[in-house]
Amino acid sequence: MRPVTPLIAVDLIIRLAEDPHSIVLIERRNPPHGWALPGGFVDVGETLEAAAVREAREETCLEVRLEALLGCYSDPARDPRGHTVSAVYVAKGRGEPRAADDARNLRCVDARDTGLPLVFDHGTILADYLRWLKTGEGKKLGEDRMTGGSA
Amino acid sequence: MRPVTPLIAVDLIIRLAEDPHSIVLIERRNPPHGWALPGGFVDVGETLEAAAVREAREETCLEVRLEALLGCYSDPARDPRGHTVSAVYVAKGRGEPRAADDARNLRCVDARDTGLPLVFDHGTILADYLRWLKTGEGKKLGEDRMTGGSA
Repeated sequence: MRPVTPLIAVDLIIRLAEDPHSIVLIERRNPPHGWALPGGFVDVGETLEAAAVREAREETCLEVRLEALLGCYSDPARDPRGHTVSAVYVAKGRGEPRAADDARNLRCVDARDTGLPLVFDHGTILADYLRWLKTGEGKKLGEDRMTGGSA
Repeated sequence: MRPVTPLIAVDLIIRLAEDPHSIVLIERRNPPHGWALPGGFVDVGETLEAAAVREAREETCLEVRLEALLGCYSDPARDPRGHTVSAVYVAKGRGEPRAADDARNLRCVDARDTGLPLVFDHGTILADYLRWLKTGEGKKLGEDRMTGGSA
C-alpha cells in the first residue's frame, strides 16, 4: 500500500545583485493571494534541485544556480491548502526577471524590509535567510526536535 | 485539484558515543531487505523533526536530539518502491539501542566501514556524513542544480 505523506515543494531565495539583501518576490496568481518566494510543487521523477531550477525559470524567467539548502519547513499549518513540506534553496539568478506562469507580478525587494504582505511562512524563511547571511547557519531545528511522538 | 508529488520520508544518522563514527544501523524487516539508517515516512500533520524523533524511538528505542539537517536526497531512482524524498538528520541518541517495529536487527557500526550491505542511497549518505564531520558542509547540491527543466 502506498503511504500517504505531506506534499513536497521547493521555494527559492533568488539574489540578483552582489548585495545579497536584494531578492525576488512574486505576487501569486492563485490563492492564497499575496506575495511569496518563487517556488512550487515537485513533480514525481524530478529532483528537488531540478524542481527549483524549473520553478525559477517558469515564474521569474531567471536561470539560477543553487548555492545552499537553507532548510526544510514542515509545520502542518504553514500552508492553508494542506500539509506541504518546503525545501528552501538560496540561489543566484542570471537574466532579466519577469513575472510569468503562476506569477502575476514580480518585484526585487530588500529582504530586510520587503514592504509587502507575505503568504505562508515566507516571512519566517526570510528571517532565517538574514541570519544565514550573518552566521552561515540554516533554519534552526527548533522546538520540533523534542516533541516527536506526542501519542 | 490536489497535486501529486514524491513522497517525503526522514532518515537519521544516530551517534551514541562520543566517537561520531559510531552510528546505528537497522536490518529492514520489509523489502527492500538489507541494512539501512533508521527512518520512515512522514505522517500528514507531523513535522519532519517530529517524524525523525518518532521513527528513532519506534525502530531503535532511542530518544534522540536532532543536531543538523545533512541534506535532502531526491534522486527518483533512490528507492525502488517509488519516488521518495528523504530529509536526513544527524542526531545524538540516548538510551540502550534495541531493534523494534520495522527493524529486524540493529547494530552499532563504524560509519567509515560498516561491513554491511546498505540499501537505497544510504552508502552515499554515510559518505556525505563523513565529509560533514570533517568540513561542516552538508550534502552537495551536485549536478542536479544545472539540469532542471530538461524538457
